[in-house]
Amino acid sequence: MSHLYRHLRIHQVFGANTDVGKTIVTTALVRASALKNNAVFYLKPISTGPLHDADDKHVKRFAGPNQSLVETQCLFRYDEPVSPHLAVKMASRASENAVTVPSDRTFLNSVAQYVRSCARKCPAGHMYIETAGGVHSPTLAGTTQLDSYRPLLFPTVLVGDSKLGGISSTISSYESLLLRGYAIDAVILFRDHYYRNYEYLSSYFATRGLRVLSLDPPPPRLDNHAQNAEITEAYYAKLVPGGLDGDIFEAVRHLDDCHTRRIEELDTMPRRTLDTVWWPFVQHGLVNSETDVTVIDSAWGDFFSVYERASGSPSKTISNQNSLLSPQFDSSASWWTQTLGHSTPSLALAAASAAGRYGHVIFPEATHLPALKLAEHLVNEGPGKGWASRAFFSDNGSTGTEVALKMALRAFSAEAVPAMTPVEKQNLGVIGLKGSYHGDTIGAMDATKESTYSCEWHRPKGFWFDPPTVSIKRGKLAVSVSNLMPTSVPSTHHFNSLDALYDVEGRLSSSLAEAYRLFARQTLQAFICAKEQKLAALMLEPIVMGAGGMIFVDPLFQRVLVDLVRDVSLFSTPLPVIYDEVFTGLYRLGLESAIPLLKANPDISVYAKMLTGGTLPLAVTLASDRIFQAFNGESKADALLHGHSYTAHPIGCQVANETLKLIGGLLQKEPWKAAQIKWSTDAKSRSTIWSFWEPSFAHAVSHLDIVEEVMTLGTVFTVKFNGDNTGYASHCARELLRSIKGVADDGSRSSTFGIHFRTLGNTAYFMTSLNTPREVIEEVENRIWVTLDAQNKGKL
Amino acid sequence: MSHLYRHLRIHQVFGANTDVGKTIVTTALVRASALKNNAVFYLKPISTGPLHDADDKHVKRFAGPNQSLVETQCLFRYDEPVSPHLAVKMASRASENAVTVPSDRTFLNSVAQYVRSCARKCPAGHMYIETAGGVHSPTLAGTTQLDSYRPLLFPTVLVGDSKLGGISSTISSYESLLLRGYAIDAVILFRDHYYRNYEYLSSYFATRGLRVLSLDPPPPRLDNHAQNAEITEAYYAKLVPGGLDGDIFEAVRHLDDCHTRRIEELDTMPRRTLDTVWWPFVQHGLVNSETDVTVIDSAWGDFFSVYERASGSPSKTISNQNSLLSPQFDSSASWWTQTLGHSTPSLALAAASAAGRYGHVIFPEATHLPALKLAEHLVNEGPGKGWASRAFFSDNGSTGTEVALKMALRAFSAEAVPAMTPVEKQNLGVIGLKGSYHGDTIGAMDATKESTYSCEWHRPKGFWFDPPTVSIKRGKLAVSVSNLMPTSVPSTHHFNSLDALYDVEGRLSSSLAEAYRLFARQTLQAFICAKEQKLAALMLEPIVMGAGGMIFVDPLFQRVLVDLVRDVSLFSTPLPVIYDEVFTGLYRLGLESAIPLLKANPDISVYAKMLTGGTLPLAVTLASDRIFQAFNGESKADALLHGHSYTAHPIGCQVANETLKLIGGLLQKEPWKAAQIKWSTDAKSRSTIWSFWEPSFAHAVSHLDIVEEVMTLGTVFTVKFNGDNTGYASHCARELLRSIKGVADDGSRSSTFGIHFRTLGNTAYFMTSLNTPREVIEEVENRIWVTLDAQNKGKL
Repeated sequence: MSHLYRHLRIHQVFGANTDVGKTIVTTALVRASALKNNAVFYLKPISTGPLHDADDKHVKRFAGPNQSLVETQCLFRYDEPVSPHLAVKMASRASENAVTVPSDRTFLNSVAQYVRSCARKCPAGHMYIETAGGVHSPTLAGTTQLDSYRPLLFPTVLVGDSKLGGISSTISSYESLLLRGYAIDAVILFRDHYYRNYEYLSSYFATRGLRVLSLDPPPPRLDNHAQNAEITEAYYAKLVPGGLDGDIFEAVRHLDDCHTRRIEELDTMPRRTLDTVWWPFVQHGLVNSETDVTVIDSAWGDFFSVYERASGSPSKTISNQNSLLSPQFDSSASWWTQTLGHSTPSLALAAASAAGRYGHVIFPEATHLPALKLAEHLVNEGPGKGWASRAFFSDNGSTGTEVALKMALRAFSAEAVPAMTPVEKQNLGVIGLKGSYHGDTIGAMDATKESTYSCEWHRPKGFWFDPPTVSIKRGKLAVSVSNLMPTSVPSTHHFNSLDALYDVEGRLSSSLAEAYRLFARQTLQAFICAKEQKLAALMLEPIVMGAGGMIFVDPLFQRVLVDLVRDVSLFSTPLPVIYDEVFTGLYRLGLESAIPLLKANPDISVYAKMLTGGTLPLAVTLASDRIFQAFNGESKADALLHGHSYTAHPIGCQVANETLKLIGGLLQKEPWKAAQIKWSTDAKSRSTIWSFWEPSFAHAVSHLDIVEEVMTLGTVFTVKFNGDNTGYASHCARELLRSIKGVADDGSRSSTFGIHFRTLGNTAYFMTSLNTPREVIEEVENRIWVTLDAQNKGKL
Repeated sequence: MSHLYRHLRIHQVFGANTDVGKTIVTTALVRASALKNNAVFYLKPISTGPLHDADDKHVKRFAGPNQSLVETQCLFRYDEPVSPHLAVKMASRASENAVTVPSDRTFLNSVAQYVRSCARKCPAGHMYIETAGGVHSPTLAGTTQLDSYRPLLFPTVLVGDSKLGGISSTISSYESLLLRGYAIDAVILFRDHYYRNYEYLSSYFATRGLRVLSLDPPPPRLDNHAQNAEITEAYYAKLVPGGLDGDIFEAVRHLDDCHTRRIEELDTMPRRTLDTVWWPFVQHGLVNSETDVTVIDSAWGDFFSVYERASGSPSKTISNQNSLLSPQFDSSASWWTQTLGHSTPSLALAAASAAGRYGHVIFPEATHLPALKLAEHLVNEGPGKGWASRAFFSDNGSTGTEVALKMALRAFSAEAVPAMTPVEKQNLGVIGLKGSYHGDTIGAMDATKESTYSCEWHRPKGFWFDPPTVSIKRGKLAVSVSNLMPTSVPSTHHFNSLDALYDVEGRLSSSLAEAYRLFARQTLQAFICAKEQKLAALMLEPIVMGAGGMIFVDPLFQRVLVDLVRDVSLFSTPLPVIYDEVFTGLYRLGLESAIPLLKANPDISVYAKMLTGGTLPLAVTLASDRIFQAFNGESKADALLHGHSYTAHPIGCQVANETLKLIGGLLQKEPWKAAQIKWSTDAKSRSTIWSFWEPSFAHAVSHLDIVEEVMTLGTVFTVKFNGDNTGYASHCARELLRSIKGVADDGSRSSTFGIHFRTLGNTAYFMTSLNTPREVIEEVENRIWVTLDAQNKGKL
């Protein structure tokens, strides 16, 4: 929702406090811009206080040669000179009829609509948006201004406080603005020659790369209105002289420069990126034009604010009069990390407070509160509850699974009789599923089969089953078994509800479970008899294999495997079991963990991605006491000799603690309840297995001819397309959805945002955060439906 | 330097602005604490304005039953009612003699000294420290208060602003406090019934776990002094009633609770950590007592603030009257990460601003300014200058070197004629040095020899030379060659200066260079002829092998190896060369990179650790165009299929950009110059190879009998002890230095801080940041010297 126009330079004016001269500075800027022959829009979105003293009066009184170019606007006006959130309440009390309090959304839409209308009616101009009170003064709905205005992310002029104490309030306001990601282009304040705040602040902000401009202070206010008007007008005449020189024109020039530089920077970013950056998982040979580069100027909630250079793309309908920034729904959740939307203020504050208290501090043989609290939560209350004894920290999912492997292999080795040779230890095998992926580091890759992802040193160590999968085909929820299963087992098994299919415990006595057991046991026995490799651990991504192509696995098969590797008639000691919940855990699938669903505790499990709410890398590997004891002893060399420098970095841990707290606050709330009821069979109770996506939407898409199957759980919706089976290298999903990326612009199927998506071969997936509003998901659903339906018709 | 006393609860009182009632609230707190029979200390460190109107007058006028228990103190007093930084200047101008401006250090020492003296003179009490103006008002030396007071890290009471605009200034002040890591125990403000800020703020802060308490507002000030005093006294009598009930007593109770809970939390942290956390690189069987756990309450500059539970350690001299927190110099630089000291405010702000603008955003096929700027800096101006074409992002040094390996092995494979089999690709070998360590993930480990660090899947792939090493033995700087070299080569080669030894280009024509060349060529030829493994890359940690035991390698030998692997008479195509500069790069050794020293560009290099100034994990792998082209093409499967979810996370990139900017500011400054001159041979010019540690100190230590050798470069000083050669498992260095950890407490060799150190077997190392003050390093040197000298005498 950010706005940026090439031809209309917009600045919002925030005050370091109330009564610091915001209106005077804004008025002076308006007059100066007008005198320099710009069309000028002066927007005061909310005004409180008596009308006769309205903030725009000195703009209105302005009789410069270009008066005709100046437009003033106020969107919400209240009589009481108090904070807007109170003013609207008092207006309601004073009036016969209750005054509706505009929501943040309504407020923001009004501002955005006015901005758009101004952009359309002038070929070149400036706009100043004067906010109310200080930076954190509440707006109408009670949200503080910094948060209310944040989605629009206008560049900012901060009017500093020139009075006693004003150094402090100016710096604090600056810091609060930065915490919300605002760019501050200038600090402007009056030259008070006694307190000299402008001197201090000029030097303070200069070292921080921020320009401070100072203006002559206004004359003292007189009691006589007429005299007051006269001296004020004289003051403005001196502050904004017709000769176009002086401080205020310097300010206008500086703001013009900032605007120009910003657009230049954005214009050059695609080329510079193509020249300097080596992207992960990208074939640069195929992504080499500037228009291929998504320039992310900022992000808020579930949306990127993406820059599209109008001049560089003549085929696009974006004209000079549209915003150069457009919203894109982040439907890959920025590679499966986003949890509560981008730029959540309390996560930024959590990061800042840990950075301010610790920076990073060493962890071995030491402790600090953020790490300890996170470990305790995960072990005692979170996914480790009931089985885990320890939390081990590392930096990302891949290192977290390497730690898990080191743990499992050692636990197995320590218990092996007779002791193994070094070569046997090097070749220990892992049991898993085809399509598994546990990270990009080579050790994590070695726990998976050869695949497109393989690299030179990758050497698969273990055995991988073809898993039975879960999907919705033509509206029907079913398990499909692989063709390696005995032909006596039916290839498809239908279920009436997610609850029924995911009732693993209930299905354990089914004939399918018996078939799984027999098949898996015989397969493993054959592998063991071949004696080529000792099997040492079972490693699973419960429920969904993500990077392998969003493959939903029949959890019953996974449970059967866990039972089998713990069966001492097959393995002399139970094999350690690893659940890689890096992608699936912490509510990505609507469940904190798959452990209660499988009703089989692992020995080790791994968490990352959503752990930090989509802000920065951190991973935790949980382990049972059995695993821990395999390393515990008298010799330092027996310890788990793994540890990255930033192990348990306080910033990540603090952000994780805040994330888990925020998630906790969502669990019982209405949007979750509503979705859980929709997926329930009886429409009254809440299903434990559910999705944020509409059942009817999922079913409808599954009926399209171009679609082979769909599946959805929690925040995830996947579509696998028919026809192209070239796997990861397939461009089919990408091609089919290409048009969804931009804001739809033909009248018939308009949308207010584009959708940024990622595909895995012929599978497309879409993800929400845990707090994405239903109406946003609905618009995404509509957009997907319209796009695919059209493609479907095209193929017929 | 943090203070915390069990028996003396201390709070600092900050104001959301000037004139918000800080003095009234503090006075009321003092009176309430006194009425509850506590000894109370009211400290106003700086007071500005006329003496007759001093802030402590209402405390002094207080005539409660416990008046005797109340002590007031002001440390710096100035007449002008302006910001302290101006008041001291104006006092200077007004006086005959210039008034000295106390430095931050002097100021802080005065406060700390007073706090300590109070702690010694009472068995139980409260202290309130009233600050001046708003949170960011400048103190005497011009630093803002939040930063000035930060090392002491007192828990905070924030006095909110009850006037119009006060919601904003209160929230902003709260955010600025959090950005510096302060714990805020309460917000206290007046109940203004018109603006009702207390209502808004109570609910705002309640959701943030912060208690808001409100008090009746003071009466309006009268012009008549006597009347004024009377009504004010009446106000206080009502605010702090003898009956010990009402809001202010609730506040005192709440602050008491916060203090008790904080100490309880700290008391229980060792046990809880031992029960829940699995530390990296730690044998829990050997570290299992609560006193083994370093409880880090906060960190500032180069110091941890460490909690030591007096009751749990009866053998220690810490009594109830000493602070429970003591400073420890972080001499491992928190595992080699610290760069500019802990908790640098501008890095916290950089992290916060990126968190507020982006959170994390997806990187493949996308770009954002923090990542682009970092890539451009590293490639075009930083260590990649002149050879690198691309920057690839990952999360830590280990993943950064895995990326480097994937790059190098693919580049080699792509050029290999004939094409290799899958098994040949799995077994490609890397040339390196014994003692190399490139990270804990298994792929990174596979590029090194078996060692203590080996784990089950570790399978060394390659060949490793015994390197010639550099050290100072008995005051003499020398290169020692391994005993594998031909006996015709002398085993020791002396040098007069670091500059002479590290003049790699100049030494290329030496006989030693010739001997290296011959030996290395013959060794490699023999390996190639054996044909067991194809050699595909050279991978080096230039200058120092860190985790391998802080082994300083003769750079001439490394340069010879680089030349050899590019010699087409030995290898049909030049082998890719990787410099792992994760530990050594970015000025850890006083050099941005070893590349200009070796005068041989790599094909790939890796950076992490100091990249983010010691705050959070981020790594960058740089690559030349030759490497990039090996992946560039038409097929997605040929791309570098590696990428962690948080690749190029904006927070890390923004912090890295700020770090590089701050480092840039140090390069030409005095402390660096002074050190560079000290290590120069002519005492006038600046040596390019130098150390922050004193030459005389290094030489003295090297002469001790218990010491085998020492070495120092840049921030690093290492000591290798004689006698114990059990390698990593050796406890010798740890035992010898044990006493250095605590604050020395026998009168003869007192020190103001302990030293937190890590060892690698029989090697101890000590590290500074890039801005550690010379006087701190000197105290560390003295402490090391005194400790080792005593041990040395004991062994004789």
